[in-house]
Amino acid sequence: MIDVALGIDFGTLSARAVFVDAKNGSVLASADSPYAHAVLTKALPDGETLPLEYALQVPADYLKSMTEAVREAKASLEAPVKVIGIGTDFTACTMIPTDESGEPLCARYPKRRHAYAKLWKHHAAQDKADLINKIGGEREESFLARYGGKISSEWALPKVWEILAEDPDLFSEMAHFVEAGDWIVWQLTGNLTKNASAAGYKGFYQDDLGYPSDDFLKALDPGLEGVFSKMGDRVYPQGSLAGHLSSEMAEVLGLEPGIPVAVGNIDAHVAIPAEGIAGAGEMLIIMGTSSCHIVVDPKMYLVPGMAGVVKDGVLPGYYGYESGQVSVGDMFQAFVDNFVPPSYWAEAKERGVSIHQLLREKCEQQKPGQSGILALDWWNGNRSVLVNANLSGVLVGLTLETKPEDVYRALIEATAYGTKVIVDNYEAGGVKISEIVAGGGIAKKNPMMMQIYADVLDRKIRVSGHTQGPAVGSAIFGAVAGGYYADLPEAIRHMGRRDGKVYEPQPEARDRYADLYKDYLWLHDVFGRERPDVSEKYRQLRGD
Amino acid sequence: MIDVALGIDFGTLSARAVFVDAKNGSVLASADSPYAHAVLTKALPDGETLPLEYALQVPADYLKSMTEAVREAKASLEAPVKVIGIGTDFTACTMIPTDESGEPLCARYPKRRHAYAKLWKHHAAQDKADLINKIGGEREESFLARYGGKISSEWALPKVWEILAEDPDLFSEMAHFVEAGDWIVWQLTGNLTKNASAAGYKGFYQDDLGYPSDDFLKALDPGLEGVFSKMGDRVYPQGSLAGHLSSEMAEVLGLEPGIPVAVGNIDAHVAIPAEGIAGAGEMLIIMGTSSCHIVVDPKMYLVPGMAGVVKDGVLPGYYGYESGQVSVGDMFQAFVDNFVPPSYWAEAKERGVSIHQLLREKCEQQKPGQSGILALDWWNGNRSVLVNANLSGVLVGLTLETKPEDVYRALIEATAYGTKVIVDNYEAGGVKISEIVAGGGIAKKNPMMMQIYADVLDRKIRVSGHTQGPAVGSAIFGAVAGGYYADLPEAIRHMGRRDGKVYEPQPEARDRYADLYKDYLWLHDVFGRERPDVSEKYRQLRGD
Repeated sequence: MIDVALGIDFGTLSARAVFVDAKNGSVLASADSPYAHAVLTKALPDGETLPLEYALQVPADYLKSMTEAVREAKASLEAPVKVIGIGTDFTACTMIPTDESGEPLCARYPKRRHAYAKLWKHHAAQDKADLINKIGGEREESFLARYGGKISSEWALPKVWEILAEDPDLFSEMAHFVEAGDWIVWQLTGNLTKNASAAGYKGFYQDDLGYPSDDFLKALDPGLEGVFSKMGDRVYPQGSLAGHLSSEMAEVLGLEPGIPVAVGNIDAHVAIPAEGIAGAGEMLIIMGTSSCHIVVDPKMYLVPGMAGVVKDGVLPGYYGYESGQVSVGDMFQAFVDNFVPPSYWAEAKERGVSIHQLLREKCEQQKPGQSGILALDWWNGNRSVLVNANLSGVLVGLTLETKPEDVYRALIEATAYGTKVIVDNYEAGGVKISEIVAGGGIAKKNPMMMQIYADVLDRKIRVSGHTQGPAVGSAIFGAVAGGYYADLPEAIRHMGRRDGKVYEPQPEARDRYADLYKDYLWLHDVFGRERPDVSEKYRQLRGD
Repeated sequence: MIDVALGIDFGTLSARAVFVDAKNGSVLASADSPYAHAVLTKALPDGETLPLEYALQVPADYLKSMTEAVREAKASLEAPVKVIGIGTDFTACTMIPTDESGEPLCARYPKRRHAYAKLWKHHAAQDKADLINKIGGEREESFLARYGGKISSEWALPKVWEILAEDPDLFSEMAHFVEAGDWIVWQLTGNLTKNASAAGYKGFYQDDLGYPSDDFLKALDPGLEGVFSKMGDRVYPQGSLAGHLSSEMAEVLGLEPGIPVAVGNIDAHVAIPAEGIAGAGEMLIIMGTSSCHIVVDPKMYLVPGMAGVVKDGVLPGYYGYESGQVSVGDMFQAFVDNFVPPSYWAEAKERGVSIHQLLREKCEQQKPGQSGILALDWWNGNRSVLVNANLSGVLVGLTLETKPEDVYRALIEATAYGTKVIVDNYEAGGVKISEIVAGGGIAKKNPMMMQIYADVLDRKIRVSGHTQGPAVGSAIFGAVAGGYYADLPEAIRHMGRRDGKVYEPQPEARDRYADLYKDYLWLHDVFGRERPDVSEKYRQLRGD
């Protein structure tokens, strides 16, 4: 019998289950199952049309996909196993309105859109987010500083306020408004817990401040008074035991009853232990359409421009810091879609490479700055450290000879400079960052970009060796909750993986970038701090 | 018998002859003949290879094409005519080394590259131009201020210095180094004259200062002492009589001997009378790959950043002012070649329109600023008013939604803003500009651009009605030299043409642009005056 931990990762479109050797973190089996209804953006299952900016899900899909993934993974195991613990992670903030027993209200009211799960990217309550920022700012609410001074429609409070405003009867009937990550643990164990990560990063709960006050809620809308009592007020550090697998769910999943289950977690954060990061000094950057930066520190620093800081929010005993760059992969894609000429597409097709690959090959021999272009990477605004969604991209240095690959390389360099701004800002604020771990699709496919990051940041970049980092991370939390290891650091030492490809800074490139970075900083401050009104104005003019 | 004036326009690739009704300026006949050797950039006619940046011509081609064009145009006249005067214009600075009699040295030395005519865009002597700027600046040579403080390899002095440095024997044997525009008049009349326009704008001759001193020449190279005596020191105002058509040339051209011939002229400047501009207040802008701005004023103002001011250089009795924008048509073309995606090219092809036309159609309904993009139009540097060839283009406002037509429109707007900088700078310096006349290929083909210029400049824009403005302008100078009119203003009143399409500023767009122009000025000063070193550095880095 091999001792294994089970990790279950609930992504935007599917659930993935992995069985991991508890001794060393090896993945023994894995399986994936897409949600039957995927994301509801245009209509409810019965065909009723949805307004713009909607993104709903059907919670029953989570259970069904989890069951399929766990059973399929288990069936593919080659040797008998003993499951010593279960951990889960989920997208966040994804919220489910339920009755007292935890049954989602959409089971009872399939025609009422507010009865469904609101996915993290449900953006329909932006007007509520704007009011929270405005009234919170006027009242100098102290919680806002923990989130860079501004929140968006993705947070839990705008989502619940939207129900009150548009379907007050449903709001009254709703006993709980639960993070999907906590709801799934509730289903597994019968216990309703609130994980510190979702509570902190998405629910405005702060260890020392608690939730925002009822006074503030009443200033927003008298009907919101007491709403946080519906959203869970017993907050558990990451890695805590939430309870044990119930007999019913054990039968459904084909597992033994009584297996320890960890509290819920956020899908990006849970990759931290999987990458072998057990404490301060190593920043994980998950790179995709946007980038998410996660680092922990034993102390709380109110670093200006960070996206959020939460105690026990990533690793227990540490303050977890989160930042973001919102213009990465989707900026490269927008450039490629709109500004690359036919001859390049023809060449890529002829050679059987992607257009991104072609552009990289055309510029990978360039020395730093040789593109002749200096860029600001804000095509989708700037989350960290300027926290201004209305900033925009800038290109400097265009000539009659400038080629698409010159701009492409400059955009990559700009994202590296933007990361350095975030890293330097943390260090100036007290948070130490000595090494970088890079995860996500772009990190694995783009050696040129990784080398540029190493040179710009003047730090070792270790690319994740995982293909399923979050699920393995959840398994590690499961092993801790199950008591297989004394604590998370010990679990990470045994189960974390530190074998990814490492990029070292190259002295010549590093020195050149140290010089060029000054130009980026100048440009960053001109357009980001001195005259943000210019970008804001021209973004605004587009809608005229 | 109809009284006609003959205008002959020597362009970069061909000579054009027009017979114009002297009473009213109507074109009665015209013909065009390309130069047999076009431009020699790679090799001499015998096959000998040329270095980079060369652009040579064969002077015999000028005579042959002139003869063909004049004879063909004359043959197509429908009624008998009496030619009352001949005027010519030529590219400048295009220089011919000759012997004492005016015979080009390349006839004698066909294997020596420095014996050929050096076309205006012969750029091989940039090192000499750099030294002239450096040493002239150190010595505070007063002539430099009349040329914005900096000259380029296109001027006459670097071109002649190149001969001294590389073929000193030829330099010694060379009796004259003549502007092609003066050489052709010499061939027609037997008289060697120096026209004020070429002398002033290209030869460093200034009415009040004369030529730069021998002291300065010696500081450059002792061998240059006295070189200006080879380049013509009797300077004639535009419209002067140079002499009369010789019997030999009359026979060659099929004309009567003794016809009065005007002194030479520069091809861009000579369009001024053709457009009916007889004095101060109206600026002619010739728009093509680059734009050339010409305006006259009764007084001399040392306007900072202009490209040159010359007495009698455009219209006799006036100071002629010249400025330039070097990034216009060729910038639009570079954008189209490098940054427009396949779907746009496919759509243009399917609809049978040019890609430029397609982009214009996609953005012509946009209100000012609605592109969301603010641009600096310096892809090929800035001639006026910053006089810095190493500046480069800037784009501000890029988002995930930005389309190629947004950038395209912003680039057009940026050239309009750039023109306004030039116009406002002249007005601040004392030169009045109340209306604009637009000539050149782009002006006729691009109504959207003309309306944008009218709105940005808050001035009427009259588009030239001519298709052969320079040749008609030369005919007008011919009529004056022939005494058909008492002076140039009277000739212009009768023969100039003022019937082109007029674009009036539209109040709403004008007001919006008045606001947006402030943003351009801010950007202009940030990158053009405060931190020109950023663009200079990144241009430099390209060559690393």
